[in-house]
Amino acid sequence: MSDEPEATRRTYSYLGPAGTFTEAALAQVPEARGQIWRPVRNVGEALADVVEGRSDAAMIAIENSVDGGVSTAQDALATMPGLRIVGEYLVPVEFVLVGRPGTRLEDVSLVAAHPVAYAQCLRWLTATLPAHAHIPAASNVASAVGLIDGTSDADAAIAAPGILEHLEVELLAEGIGDNAEAVTRFVLVSRTVAPPEPTGADKTSLIAELPDDHPGALLEMLEQFATRGINLSLLASRPIGDALGRYRFVIDADGHIMDERMADALLGLRRFSPKVIFLGSYPRADHAIIRYPDRYSDDVFVEARDWLRGLLSGEPDR
Amino acid sequence: MSDEPEATRRTYSYLGPAGTFTEAALAQVPEARGQIWRPVRNVGEALADVVEGRSDAAMIAIENSVDGGVSTAQDALATMPGLRIVGEYLVPVEFVLVGRPGTRLEDVSLVAAHPVAYAQCLRWLTATLPAHAHIPAASNVASAVGLIDGTSDADAAIAAPGILEHLEVELLAEGIGDNAEAVTRFVLVSRTVAPPEPTGADKTSLIAELPDDHPGALLEMLEQFATRGINLSLLASRPIGDALGRYRFVIDADGHIMDERMADALLGLRRFSPKVIFLGSYPRADHAIIRYPDRYSDDVFVEARDWLRGLLSGEPDR
Amino acid sequence: MSDEPEATRRTYSYLGPAGTFTEAALAQVPEARGQIWRPVRNVGEALADVVEGRSDAAMIAIENSVDGGVSTAQDALATMPGLRIVGEYLVPVEFVLVGRPGTRLEDVSLVAAHPVAYAQCLRWLTATLPAHAHIPAASNVASAVGLIDGTSDADAAIAAPGILEHLEVELLAEGIGDNAEAVTRFVLVSRTVAPPEPTGADKTSLIAELPDDHPGALLEMLEQFATRGINLSLLASRPIGDALGRYRFVIDADGHIMDERMADALLGLRRFSPKVIFLGSYPRADHAIIRYPDRYSDDVFVEARDWLRGLLSGEPDR
Amino acid sequence: MSDEPEATRRTYSYLGPAGTFTEAALAQVPEARGQIWRPVRNVGEALADVVEGRSDAAMIAIENSVDGGVSTAQDALATMPGLRIVGEYLVPVEFVLVGRPGTRLEDVSLVAAHPVAYAQCLRWLTATLPAHAHIPAASNVASAVGLIDGTSDADAAIAAPGILEHLEVELLAEGIGDNAEAVTRFVLVSRTVAPPEPTGADKTSLIAELPDDHPGALLEMLEQFATRGINLSLLASRPIGDALGRYRFVIDADGHIMDERMADALLGLRRFSPKVIFLGSYPRADHAIIRYPDRYSDDVFVEARDWLRGLLSGEPDR
Repeated sequence: MSDEPEATRRTYSYLGPAGTFTEAALAQVPEARGQIWRPVRNVGEALADVVEGRSDAAMIAIENSVDGGVSTAQDALATMPGLRIVGEYLVPVEFVLVGRPGTRLEDVSLVAAHPVAYAQCLRWLTATLPAHAHIPAASNVASAVGLIDGTSDADAAIAAPGILEHLEVELLAEGIGDNAEAVTRFVLVSRTVAPPEPTGADKTSLIAELPDDHPGALLEMLEQFATRGINLSLLASRPIGDALGRYRFVIDADGHIMDERMADALLGLRRFSPKVIFLGSYPRADHAIIRYPDRYSDDVFVEARDWLRGLLSGEPDR
Repeated sequence: MSDEPEATRRTYSYLGPAGTFTEAALAQVPEARGQIWRPVRNVGEALADVVEGRSDAAMIAIENSVDGGVSTAQDALATMPGLRIVGEYLVPVEFVLVGRPGTRLEDVSLVAAHPVAYAQCLRWLTATLPAHAHIPAASNVASAVGLIDGTSDADAAIAAPGILEHLEVELLAEGIGDNAEAVTRFVLVSRTVAPPEPTGADKTSLIAELPDDHPGALLEMLEQFATRGINLSLLASRPIGDALGRYRFVIDADGHIMDERMADALLGLRRFSPKVIFLGSYPRADHAIIRYPDRYSDDVFVEARDWLRGLLSGEPDR
Repeated sequence: MSDEPEATRRTYSYLGPAGTFTEAALAQVPEARGQIWRPVRNVGEALADVVEGRSDAAMIAIENSVDGGVSTAQDALATMPGLRIVGEYLVPVEFVLVGRPGTRLEDVSLVAAHPVAYAQCLRWLTATLPAHAHIPAASNVASAVGLIDGTSDADAAIAAPGILEHLEVELLAEGIGDNAEAVTRFVLVSRTVAPPEPTGADKTSLIAELPDDHPGALLEMLEQFATRGINLSLLASRPIGDALGRYRFVIDADGHIMDERMADALLGLRRFSPKVIFLGSYPRADHAIIRYPDRYSDDVFVEARDWLRGLLSGEPDR
Repeated sequence: MSDEPEATRRTYSYLGPAGTFTEAALAQVPEARGQIWRPVRNVGEALADVVEGRSDAAMIAIENSVDGGVSTAQDALATMPGLRIVGEYLVPVEFVLVGRPGTRLEDVSLVAAHPVAYAQCLRWLTATLPAHAHIPAASNVASAVGLIDGTSDADAAIAAPGILEHLEVELLAEGIGDNAEAVTRFVLVSRTVAPPEPTGADKTSLIAELPDDHPGALLEMLEQFATRGINLSLLASRPIGDALGRYRFVIDADGHIMDERMADALLGLRRFSPKVIFLGSYPRADHAIIRYPDRYSDDVFVEARDWLRGLLSGEPDR
């Protein structure tokens, strides 16, 4: 809690309740400390808070290394105008199995779990509790809350480790995720603002539609990046929703819109695509400096523009 | 029911119980009539039935026009060897809202729904029942079953229309899906067999990994198709799961492995990719004849091979 | 002849003497009428006249439809800085066979001819004068002059039709070129000036070196044009001269440097290539309006730049 | 001279007379020693000798590092069917200036020279004999012969060094070529035969036309090589001759038709191009072993074909 008066404090929406991985992501944001944290029930609500002014920013999960792109988040960003990604955060995905006080692991038969969490622990469950059955839950916190408030018949729940700080539950097993390296990527989203200054370790997020369905449109889109030496760290297709076989592409590209090569690629993409959404250029969570061939450096672009200007004015050759 | 003895009847696994969209897809398969239909709880179980010999084939949902690729199905096909897609089926996605007998729409507050179904009806729900809350269910049938067997607190459930033939529920609203054109694509999966003969209206499904993460690997993979005049109707990226930023690609390509241009593209893909899974060539559900430029026709390939053979043997020019 | 005082008249260098195809090209230039025409002996001398100020412009042959690029002209433009092509002219290539007065065709044994002209009439000569021998001449005029001034042993000479207006020779045969459609392309070259305004039917001439010898450098260079919808009407390779296998490329591209797509392609080319020489944008001799897909029109480029500017300033989406 | 009877000796045509660079190239062919050497006047005659059976093979100049492709040779190979290149030879291009016995360098005013040789010595001539004039000659031997037999008014001639062994001329200067590294590439051409076995240091020569004039046809042709890891050491455009702007391409590609990647590229080229002429696969004159990425090696191609065969037969996955 802060002594700052509410009027001057900033509000951050996140998928609640307390104890979710999203809350852990928000805890990584220095500017969010001591501000108002507003728990919401889904990503659409979080983004609507921002668009409609109830919050200054929203933290949302955008991708995880096991389950892939969070399609509801990608689709919301594709269809809600006025938003801009301003930061990226990584949270290791760890799961615990918890029960009501006194429960023993060998007695567990019904397991409550959010479907994504369930999928990520399936190997452990199959080996440890071969006869279990699954009851879907709305979140990695709701699964455990149901045990305590009596609304769930489950014997145990899969939850994030943070649950132990919030609820009186018994820890039955920890580290039950099937992939020890699992991590979820979150982004902090604000209303449209000018991009922050480049740091050298930046990422640019985009959503683009293809002009039409011919055997080369996607190829041509990707060439906009490849011919400027830009690597893509994410390329996901999402159905536009009007017909099978019509997709938009969610793209994360290495670099910043203020890098000459990225600006040039964005121009090419805009000319090519019937619809491009620029979601933002922001520092990467892993702080990895972007490497690229010298011939795509800013001064090469500047020099070429000077050369062209000279040609147009009839200056002697250089 | 059939009089055929069990020993000679074929078994089909599908996501049950009776009344699901998957059952509707299976009902489209003429060979499945009068055979054993085995309801299972998830796609992994359905495919394991096939691999382990409990079933002859499994019907699984692979993509829907609103929610995109069914990632659990794509991932299961990517990791379980020994399977082959042999047919494709489309089921229009329609949703109804049902309640216990006597329930009135205006009394509904808690709505049970499978998360994918919930997402597809969200616009209607927001307009019609603005104050509703969502309880996740395991399937489009389980949502309604809970109303009747008393295990759910929900007032109403989103379900497939077929539910009305199986359960004593009250129809509160129909056609509540947000997209009237919504359709789900299913595939019938058997153990590895030789592909069926081409029909001229075929599709080839593949999963491929990229050789390494450089600004052009995906481009190079797509060129394997584009340079042979092959259109892709699906390109989806799925995380391999070992690290963020590592993807495999799920591909549906127009044509059949026995088409010369497709065989040549598969050879190119195999040489290029560290891992390619051929999931099958099979007739398209929409029976649309594949069109392609004349210069990619089979006889062009045959003629070129004859020409090469002549060159190697020192025959006079043609 | 003109009454204008020499001091204010312009000088045009061309491959002389009077009667050459180059003179016919110069006769197509309205501004050259009544000015000083300076005959020179080769293309190097003509261009040196311009660079060193002895002439205002030079007319040089750059390509013919039978023999291909005029390599000495291409190489001179590649190595002499300070030049700019300002116009293009086409001259039909027709050849006559002439002799001393009184000569009969059946008596001809030795034929004087410039080697390029000889090559273009070889089929006719082989059919008509199977036993002839060839004496090379320095130009299509020198071949005939030698007959008259006694410095040549030849019985007949291949020459341009204009020779009959300048020399007392006997016409032995006309239309002896093997290709009735043959045409030679000439360019008018001045010192470096600003390009003329676009006409919609323009051509841009360039010479570019590739960055290094890897399987894809030329491909990447051509993509600079293809990805902007620009057609190339000429692509010729010329050895750089320092080692076998090292080439520069002579390029004629449809369009004008003031077209947005061409300016953008030139920027891409400059960034890519270790050496680019812009030879000029100028009206095409055939006045053919350049056609290109709408998505490469100027306003698409302008709109994309406005969009990028908006993104950088944090303006709301459009 | 050989004691072998004529009937069993082989005949080689070459651009004569004795003393030309072409003769020097032929002297590099071990199999040609002691056989019949037939001097001809031009490349067309040399190739016609082979086609019509007067010779077993012809040595022709195909490219030099200063002047570029020998267009008459390229055009003859493009239009005369039934020929195959079977070997490649390099001859350093050196020039000497010779005169009649007693001539002194300072007295030289008129210089006889083949135009290509003249171009290659122009810098030296301009510096040493600034006031000289040029008389074109038919070959690097004819230039000197004219001095001796009295048919030429020239004071000196540019010739190949070998001239000193054949003619009684005075050496006025040697090493007068402007590029000390200059070299001419020759090829030995026979009637169509099966290609020789690969040596690992081979070259494949081709001539191909593009399907039509759109902004990507050349790109697509080059991709046939680039996507198989094949480097091109020569790419030259030659007018087809029927209209300005219509070209065929002369290609030298690293590798041998019996290399899997080259055979595959040839198949792709044949399918793509309306006309491809395979001129031959033969050992490179420089014996440089061809390097290429592992993924284009023969066993990768063989493995992919085995894989495809397995898919078609319904074998279990590998």
